[in-house]
Amino acid sequence: MPLVTLTTDFGLADPYVAAMKGVLLGIAPDARIVDISHDIGAQNVAHAAFVFRQAFEFFPAGTIHLVVVDPGVGSRRRLIAARIAEQVVLAPDNGAITHVMQDFGAAALREIANPAWRRSVVSATFHGRDIFAPAAGQLAAGAPFDEIGPPIDRPVLLDLPAPSAAPDGTLTGCVIHVDRFGNLITNLRRSRIESMFAPAEEGSKTRPAASVHVGLESIGPIRRAYSDVAPRALLALFSSGDLLEIALRDGSAADRFKACVGAGVTVRPTATLLPPARP
Amino acid sequence: MPLVTLTTDFGLADPYVAAMKGVLLGIAPDARIVDISHDIGAQNVAHAAFVFRQAFEFFPAGTIHLVVVDPGVGSRRRLIAARIAEQVVLAPDNGAITHVMQDFGAAALREIANPAWRRSVVSATFHGRDIFAPAAGQLAAGAPFDEIGPPIDRPVLLDLPAPSAAPDGTLTGCVIHVDRFGNLITNLRRSRIESMFAPAEEGSKTRPAASVHVGLESIGPIRRAYSDVAPRALLALFSSGDLLEIALRDGSAADRFKACVGAGVTVRPTATLLPPARP
Amino acid sequence: MPLVTLTTDFGLADPYVAAMKGVLLGIAPDARIVDISHDIGAQNVAHAAFVFRQAFEFFPAGTIHLVVVDPGVGSRRRLIAARIAEQVVLAPDNGAITHVMQDFGAAALREIANPAWRRSVVSATFHGRDIFAPAAGQLAAGAPFDEIGPPIDRPVLLDLPAPSAAPDGTLTGCVIHVDRFGNLITNLRRSRIESMFAPAEEGSKTRPAASVHVGLESIGPIRRAYSDVAPRALLALFSSGDLLEIALRDGSAADRFKACVGAGVTVRPTATLLPPARP
Repeated sequence: MPLVTLTTDFGLADPYVAAMKGVLLGIAPDARIVDISHDIGAQNVAHAAFVFRQAFEFFPAGTIHLVVVDPGVGSRRRLIAARIAEQVVLAPDNGAITHVMQDFGAAALREIANPAWRRSVVSATFHGRDIFAPAAGQLAAGAPFDEIGPPIDRPVLLDLPAPSAAPDGTLTGCVIHVDRFGNLITNLRRSRIESMFAPAEEGSKTRPAASVHVGLESIGPIRRAYSDVAPRALLALFSSGDLLEIALRDGSAADRFKACVGAGVTVRPTATLLPPARP
Repeated sequence: MPLVTLTTDFGLADPYVAAMKGVLLGIAPDARIVDISHDIGAQNVAHAAFVFRQAFEFFPAGTIHLVVVDPGVGSRRRLIAARIAEQVVLAPDNGAITHVMQDFGAAALREIANPAWRRSVVSATFHGRDIFAPAAGQLAAGAPFDEIGPPIDRPVLLDLPAPSAAPDGTLTGCVIHVDRFGNLITNLRRSRIESMFAPAEEGSKTRPAASVHVGLESIGPIRRAYSDVAPRALLALFSSGDLLEIALRDGSAADRFKACVGAGVTVRPTATLLPPARP
Repeated sequence: MPLVTLTTDFGLADPYVAAMKGVLLGIAPDARIVDISHDIGAQNVAHAAFVFRQAFEFFPAGTIHLVVVDPGVGSRRRLIAARIAEQVVLAPDNGAITHVMQDFGAAALREIANPAWRRSVVSATFHGRDIFAPAAGQLAAGAPFDEIGPPIDRPVLLDLPAPSAAPDGTLTGCVIHVDRFGNLITNLRRSRIESMFAPAEEGSKTRPAASVHVGLESIGPIRRAYSDVAPRALLALFSSGDLLEIALRDGSAADRFKACVGAGVTVRPTATLLPPARP
């Protein structure tokens, strides 16, 4: 019972997603389909790459993922199939797999090119239905990965904004996703922050000796959970995807800051070496 | 092929729901997942409790329900598992099960506490993925309910607004849900209204001898179906969940009244004892 | 493992769709459910008929489709079951099957009338749950189609706007759907346009010698793909459903034209018989 996921910008109102599912289930009647998101911003490949990566790692080995955000449909762009962390990802070669490639690497990369694995008539506007869904159906029905097309070398990757560390010990990144709750998810990873900032003890817990800033405003230290601050207070914490997140407890940090993707976020070391108190 | 339902406030745009499904299907590959709603108002436990209850009774025995609207995630609030009407409900102990408890009672209540039934690393912000989904996966894969954790006595229940009956025979309640069509669903049950107001015959049908009022406006008697009034007319009728509902045929009663959850609705006895007509 | 699809105007926030699924899976636990759309405009039968038709043909033989957009619920309108292209469609008899009837014809038409195939108590407001879902469940569980009710002659069909061809060789139709991307989908079929307008060669491709107009504005010739024009340029092309479509590359034609369903679109022959160039 192979698992197939879908990530698209097709929305759920139009018949496009259902057409893909119909084609897929016509080929692989036993496939289980899980929607990751169909509300990716129209033609926003970076958005798709992020949302897909956040869900990807929670699926079991053998899962087949379709990521169809495809502004170049009908042009000569390639379609790719990647084996990543014992799962398979099918996508236009436009950077949609950037985050999963960076975080997990690819064990194999092929072009989706097998003419027997597509619909007999391929439209110039909907390869999700005419090429991706049938290819996923073939894989889900047990066809070997290597028959999907010839190997390729390097896929297109997005030039993602990288965090930067300054000589004074500050780390600067930016917001890369705003979720339904108005939480601002940044590109600052827990591992990087924990390696840059020594842990400070506080009660029985330790946390990085750092304070977080959005523009000129200080958000304070990095907390463990939303409930560590009072209702309607701002806080910084690590997201469920281990990225630095700015939140407003029981509210929306995005509304509070009028912030959106791209807004700068800085982590500064806490002054821990004050002069010793006068005796 | 166990059935698992999901009710959350995560929306469908972000990767959160898919992450839960990936974790669940990794443990119980045969589970069938049905979404009840992911558009519960953010952190609105009362909304979740109502929507969940309206769907709950239509699922077969053995269904496992996850209701994850969890403003207290990361704090010390309990997580509970309830056996209700031969189904199982997993939720934070915050009142999400109030309506199903009131209407069906619980045959067993336990705390979700088995450390072997959660992900190896549990985040402080996403117990839906790290605790609820794995626990549901264990149950769906056949693990015994009693192993989920120790029995508990009484779950947190919401203090829901109760309808009140006045000495003059009027019954007052309020709107507790506004649906997609702008129908105003109240907390006034058909059974209560039918027991308070004698049936009046009209043609071949009987209906309660009562008139319904929203604020100062009379909606008229309780009808059987939308088609009992002219297009664009207001009416009162019993909802598909047997609650008194105010509707605008082929339109939105919520727009018409600018009404939202909490608006008062009154049912008054119809004057049935007029003096006999003069001969 | 029979496939069942759902097309409704119930939205995904309310418990209505889940109640239908619970009832269906209680009767046919092996059924696979695919959502076509639940965002059909409230009570918009024409919208449902179009969206459903666009997805319909991509499902395999044996699929059972429920199309429940039902402004007449509770009135005496019929419910129908149609065998179309080896699939089965259940719907109120209100025109929801118009497009699939026109394009594929019906091999059999029956009224949904078997009292044993509905819930024991049938509400006056939600036949999707009380009649359609149980009937689909019976069919999905293997009950014979003919037991659903007596044969009927002719279903209600919508009086759809028909394209018109003028003596001067122009073809006029209108927008019948605006999709998530703001693409304007018209009722002008590729086959009709290709039969009316001779192919003009252009490079190695041919396309109809015609230009497309929205109101007074010329959109130019009919292109093959979005990528045939520059970003942010308007174009006409055939949709993935082989209907003439007006699009704005990397943008929204609907926003550009403030156009909605009903807007007129004209296809004119290209002047191909210019006087021969002077020698």
